[in-house]
Amino acid sequence: MTDRFRGVITPILTPFNDDLSVANDLYLDHAAACLAGGAHYISPFGTTSEATSHSVRERMEMLELLVSSGTARPEQLMPGTGLCSLEETLTLSRHAVDMGCAAIMTLPPFFFVNASDEGLYRYFSLLIERIGSVKAKICLYHIPQMTGIGISPALAARLNEAFPETVVAYKDSSGKWENTKAVIEAAPGISVFPGSESFLIDGMKLGGGGCISASCNSNVAAIRALYDLAAAGEWEAAEAALGPVNLHRKAIQDGGLIPALKSLKAHLSEDARWLTLRPPLENADPAMGPKLAETL
Amino acid sequence: MTDRFRGVITPILTPFNDDLSVANDLYLDHAAACLAGGAHYISPFGTTSEATSHSVRERMEMLELLVSSGTARPEQLMPGTGLCSLEETLTLSRHAVDMGCAAIMTLPPFFFVNASDEGLYRYFSLLIERIGSVKAKICLYHIPQMTGIGISPALAARLNEAFPETVVAYKDSSGKWENTKAVIEAAPGISVFPGSESFLIDGMKLGGGGCISASCNSNVAAIRALYDLAAAGEWEAAEAALGPVNLHRKAIQDGGLIPALKSLKAHLSEDARWLTLRPPLENADPAMGPKLAETL
Repeated sequence: MTDRFRGVITPILTPFNDDLSVANDLYLDHAAACLAGGAHYISPFGTTSEATSHSVRERMEMLELLVSSGTARPEQLMPGTGLCSLEETLTLSRHAVDMGCAAIMTLPPFFFVNASDEGLYRYFSLLIERIGSVKAKICLYHIPQMTGIGISPALAARLNEAFPETVVAYKDSSGKWENTKAVIEAAPGISVFPGSESFLIDGMKLGGGGCISASCNSNVAAIRALYDLAAAGEWEAAEAALGPVNLHRKAIQDGGLIPALKSLKAHLSEDARWLTLRPPLENADPAMGPKLAETL
Repeated sequence: MTDRFRGVITPILTPFNDDLSVANDLYLDHAAACLAGGAHYISPFGTTSEATSHSVRERMEMLELLVSSGTARPEQLMPGTGLCSLEETLTLSRHAVDMGCAAIMTLPPFFFVNASDEGLYRYFSLLIERIGSVKAKICLYHIPQMTGIGISPALAARLNEAFPETVVAYKDSSGKWENTKAVIEAAPGISVFPGSESFLIDGMKLGGGGCISASCNSNVAAIRALYDLAAAGEWEAAEAALGPVNLHRKAIQDGGLIPALKSLKAHLSEDARWLTLRPPLENADPAMGPKLAETL
């Protein structure tokens, strides 16, 4: 990856059957639709994918299925691989790197929420050493409102300096623009992706990478069009395109993101399996989808 | 388990070799010492055990090793089995139940920190149904300062009412006596274990189960003596015994619990491997152990 890592990345939803197993048919259809709609990459096992509600075994099987079915090429994939156990994070990371995935997205280990930056540095540097491949590209995943522990701008910069060919991206799902900006400034070698398209223009003006956003599951074509305008430096046209994109985002966000996206998918696809979420989350309300479809 | 589940439970430390693999020899020695010192049960894979820094595979192997080595009988074991993925929590739980363990200790799934009580109820009730064994005994593990999500008194009561033979205990590591008291009152069918011996007397006066405490790793004989006095209703003698036990606790707590306990073990056993913690935690300071040994 000599060029900077950039684009519109969809953290794809995971549909489940009634027994809570993964609905492979719906999964592949949805992944294909996101790519056809304009996503540069898809990211299985982000928060929107209910990543942590999957087993290690399932994650590897689903990633293999995306490729073996011809739905996605490995270079279009950036799977989430971050767990609390270094061994298991390593298992998922090596598997993705061996498959030729574009990058891996790694949460900090999220149980010891008081771990120091020094301790997190130790974790990530051991992970990188043990992956032991120049092909590994890591996107640090910052979502402190879920993990209770974040990846500070200083830590991102330190990791990029120590591993410039490996630690190449940062997903900022904090929703805090000040943090996004601080990472871009502290770590110019890193491609920073806001977790919302609302910050896509502001981020790209400073050299940010694009966005990795939940609403790419329902609005990828418009977000891709916005990205293309920003990438071409057509800032006025991009600002004009941002308005409707933000309205879409707000409707999904007000519905609680995952349940809203799933209820909308259930309505549009006429497949009620989309309403299922894995516990500890509750199933989506079937009435939300039709309302959202009307609003959007 | 017709009698209530009671006693002194040691959430045992995990020692590591320099390459971060589990130091089985030190592990078995320590487990044996905790039982010989008076622990009724040992709990592998609590927070003090750095549970979440282990893989599913390691946890099953270590549990089997404790039994196959003759170090512990299954009925002396209450392993932690709670992960974010229901499938993996189920794998560990079934394994422990099949081995005949006294109970399993289950964290709530700790990534979706905004999950509702309804969603958590769905998670635990599915877990119990899928374990599918009347032998399963569950200790709910409440440690919201790490998990970002807790098990409310109302949820504990609801689970105990729905599964009275299975949901039989609650470990309260919040350090908040008001919560401990609220669970005892809301769920009289549940045996509540404070996560600190400091609340052992107050808890047992209301029918609580004893304690499950990090400092049982370094002070189990004194805590067992305290428990025995409280169990016999000798409250005055118990209060007198509590003073020195609290001082010990404070010294360990001031040192950051796990690093303090490990540095002390390294000093007393003259084995420097005890200084190793898995990332994201930092290794223990070798200077702390001798100081603690002097203080205690």
